Amino acid sequence: MSENEVPSQLEEIPEVECRHLLALHRLGRLAVVVEGHPQIFPLNYALDDRLIVFRTAPGTKLTFAPMSRVAFEIDDYDPSIRGGWSVMVQGVAEEITGALDRISEAARKLPVSPLAPGQREHWLAVRPTRITGRRFRLAAGGEQQ
Amino acid sequence: MSENEVPSQLEEIPEVECRHLLALHRLGRLAVVVEGHPQIFPLNYALDDRLIVFRTAPGTKLTFAPMSRVAFEIDDYDPSIRGGWSVMVQGVAEEITGALDRISEAARKLPVSPLAPGQREHWLAVRPTRITGRRFRLAAGGEQQ
Repeated sequence: MSENEVPSQLEEIPEVECRHLLALHRLGRLAVVVEGHPQIFPLNYALDDRLIVFRTAPGTKLTFAPMSRVAFEIDDYDPSIRGGWSVMVQGVAEEITGALDRISEAARKLPVSPLAPGQREHWLAVRPTRITGRRFRLAAGGEQQ
Repeated sequence: MSENEVPSQLEEIPEVECRHLLALHRLGRLAVVVEGHPQIFPLNYALDDRLIVFRTAPGTKLTFAPMSRVAFEIDDYDPSIRGGWSVMVQGVAEEITGALDRISEAARKLPVSPLAPGQREHWLAVRPTRITGRRFRLAAGGEQQ
């Protein structure tokens, strides 16, 4: 490590800031447990006050996520400041495609735009039970901790 | 969708090409199951012929990954071709910090360079049982499927 680098430890991101980061991004990864085995899928999502919302086609996510514990994660790394962060949402997924409650109806109006091709007519939502985040920065000059 | 966009479906990436992508990258995400609940962690890794190798400090990964089923995922998206891909490794993790077999000794010589600060003196390896990948490209001009 060169002399002008100040190592800082991993720092927890407050939940309110985690939610802000979730609102700013569109691409994350969902982990579901399939018969005891975790799997990870990248997907595009939207956030409302309460829910992580995404669309999917019939497949592993639709079969195994609803009514199950899942994790959703976003992260980023900026080489210019050698800084990175990640936010993880833990919670239970549910299918809201046909749900008539006001929260689900509002969630289905969110601008969820999958980058990948294909029909994705099923709406899934993750209701967070825990939102955590971490960040670090190995600052070379500039703002330092 | 505008006229000059040719939608292509999701395409499977052959395993040999998945391994090539894994060899080219350094940052991925690990999913572990903690008492039935999946969690996702970004981390830096290296690949040898057989193993995904990374370093960690005492914590959730070290407590829950060894001898358990995990998933490891890398992905990328290129806005210029509106194309993306992801590769997922499923397998069992093990701690190889003190393992004396030749494979583990070789794995511990890999250049695993965590971006995040902090001591990471424990070596973990994921032995793949399944490697899968998918890609898509919404080509606007140029090479099309």
